[in-house]
Amino acid sequence: MNYMLKDENAIYYECGYSCDNALYIRLESYAYFITDSRYTIDADKNVIGAEVRINGDLYVEVVKLLKKHKVKKIIFDPKEWTVAGFERVRENSKVKFKPELDFSHKKRIIKNDEELKILAKAVKLGAKAFKQLSKEFIKNGFGKDEYTLTHMAKGIFGDFGKYELSFDPIVAINKNAARPHAMPTPTVLKKDDLLLVDAGLKYKRYCSDRTRTVHADKGLVFETKQNFKGKKIQKAYDTVLKAHDNAIVKARSGMKAKKVDALTRDIVEKAGFGKYYVHSTGHGVGLDIHEMPYISTKSDTIIEDGMVYTIEPGIYIPDEFGIRIEDMVTMVDGKAKVMSGN
Amino acid sequence: MNYMLKDENAIYYECGYSCDNALYIRLESYAYFITDSRYTIDADKNVIGAEVRINGDLYVEVVKLLKKHKVKKIIFDPKEWTVAGFERVRENSKVKFKPELDFSHKKRIIKNDEELKILAKAVKLGAKAFKQLSKEFIKNGFGKDEYTLTHMAKGIFGDFGKYELSFDPIVAINKNAARPHAMPTPTVLKKDDLLLVDAGLKYKRYCSDRTRTVHADKGLVFETKQNFKGKKIQKAYDTVLKAHDNAIVKARSGMKAKKVDALTRDIVEKAGFGKYYVHSTGHGVGLDIHEMPYISTKSDTIIEDGMVYTIEPGIYIPDEFGIRIEDMVTMVDGKAKVMSGN
Repeated sequence: MNYMLKDENAIYYECGYSCDNALYIRLESYAYFITDSRYTIDADKNVIGAEVRINGDLYVEVVKLLKKHKVKKIIFDPKEWTVAGFERVRENSKVKFKPELDFSHKKRIIKNDEELKILAKAVKLGAKAFKQLSKEFIKNGFGKDEYTLTHMAKGIFGDFGKYELSFDPIVAINKNAARPHAMPTPTVLKKDDLLLVDAGLKYKRYCSDRTRTVHADKGLVFETKQNFKGKKIQKAYDTVLKAHDNAIVKARSGMKAKKVDALTRDIVEKAGFGKYYVHSTGHGVGLDIHEMPYISTKSDTIIEDGMVYTIEPGIYIPDEFGIRIEDMVTMVDGKAKVMSGN
Repeated sequence: MNYMLKDENAIYYECGYSCDNALYIRLESYAYFITDSRYTIDADKNVIGAEVRINGDLYVEVVKLLKKHKVKKIIFDPKEWTVAGFERVRENSKVKFKPELDFSHKKRIIKNDEELKILAKAVKLGAKAFKQLSKEFIKNGFGKDEYTLTHMAKGIFGDFGKYELSFDPIVAINKNAARPHAMPTPTVLKKDDLLLVDAGLKYKRYCSDRTRTVHADKGLVFETKQNFKGKKIQKAYDTVLKAHDNAIVKARSGMKAKKVDALTRDIVEKAGFGKYYVHSTGHGVGLDIHEMPYISTKSDTIIEDGMVYTIEPGIYIPDEFGIRIEDMVTMVDGKAKVMSGN
């Protein structure tokens, strides 16, 4: 099989190294990692199973290699390539380019043992960070706005510079939590507020991802057992937790992903909150924070052992509050095992 | 003129609002901002001079509008579009798509008065952050590694969550500074080290960008006057500063950008450090941290009043040290004016 990759994580998966200016081409049993001279030393040291080629113009090198190997057909993922970059290769090659959406994500959908270990460690570090964040917020969080709280979360999840983050943490109070992708506002954390935190970090390039929604008081902990002051909030919270737990208990290898989605959605709908559950149940997690399998109402992907994905139902009532509870699971012996970090 | 934009900043420039899932099309006197329902409220409130269209599939909306307006020809920048996204539009339209590289960057190369004010404010905030960083490093920086120092710089440049950063700050000690795009290492800051910091922040989406290389001791300040212990370092430093100052004093509107590049390069070459000056003199700064004009050996761009760009010569001696001094300038009345932040 011949294929060419542009995405940094797709390339890392193939040869154990990548950088922000690289291409990778696999031509049957040959493989090439192409980058510019800034990365020569690192590439030579770290690339496994591919020949390193240095060229200030990566596309020229691809064209040269396609010609040298007399390649007739090559697969590429049209989501990875810009029109400009792809045309540089296409215009100068007599090759049939076969578009295949999500080519690398499909290869990466089942995690091997090494990847599962790394992901487990990422989750463990993420869980530890949530515990530390709890202490920090109890001590210094009240009276601070979402900008500051987000900055505090960045420091703790990154262990003050040691780890990269999976994404910018979401720290949202009360009605701001009603936006699934909330951006910080000047809202200040007060006692008895609802507080949603969605955060994760990268360990050896693999992501962790978790969300907790909590009642903020002097004992605030990012655990799933929560007691809110308002009845409506508590009802919504209990519904989300029930949906979350239901999917974890009942998800099975062999199910379609949309069946797993229904395991959370049915419960939220039956409780009367259906129209406030505005997103999918979850997504795969690996080198990318969002990858396959997608746990959505439309996904026919068959869930299999070795997949890693999030279960993250939510209820978002505009101008009132938002609740989401998210954990990563891995499929083991046909069942979903929560990656708890313990 | 008809054109379609995909890049977030390119879109913001047209209509004063953008988000991470948007398209913009201009069809002669009509303009449309297309996004999904998550952004309806913000788009309706903030988009100026364009009709907001909400569609879960942005490309379907583009195809519909191209048909409705009977468009025959439309410009796009092939660097902005993925093959996948572009093909969704192309395959379903009977339109001639005209690729034009850097279409939006070309429009944005001369800044208007409002943009210049915003950029000046961004630079001012950046300069203030450098002063604060100096105090923080004197007090708490010695004995800390580059990871921690970088995290400290992130906090200060972002004012602890208030501002976005132009890019992840570079904080590099001694030989680590010899990589122009240094990543943090466990190297710890000690007295008499060479310390390079390259950092900036965004104000109203516009970027600041500045680099200082300093002698680290109890009086470390991020100013251009520096006294190093080693003679070779001092000679290299004085050369870089001379090159930096020479370009600022002699750059003129009407010059080709490569002539401005030569104003720094000639001095570095004459001092015998030519082969250690491994990058261009500078780049334009605006909504993007790197935009036109590019001040490189090959650029025939004519420098004009209203352009904003960096002057950032450097000398990088592998396994020894790296030096870079960078300031932003704006062309006013034919001359380069340093954006000092004072």
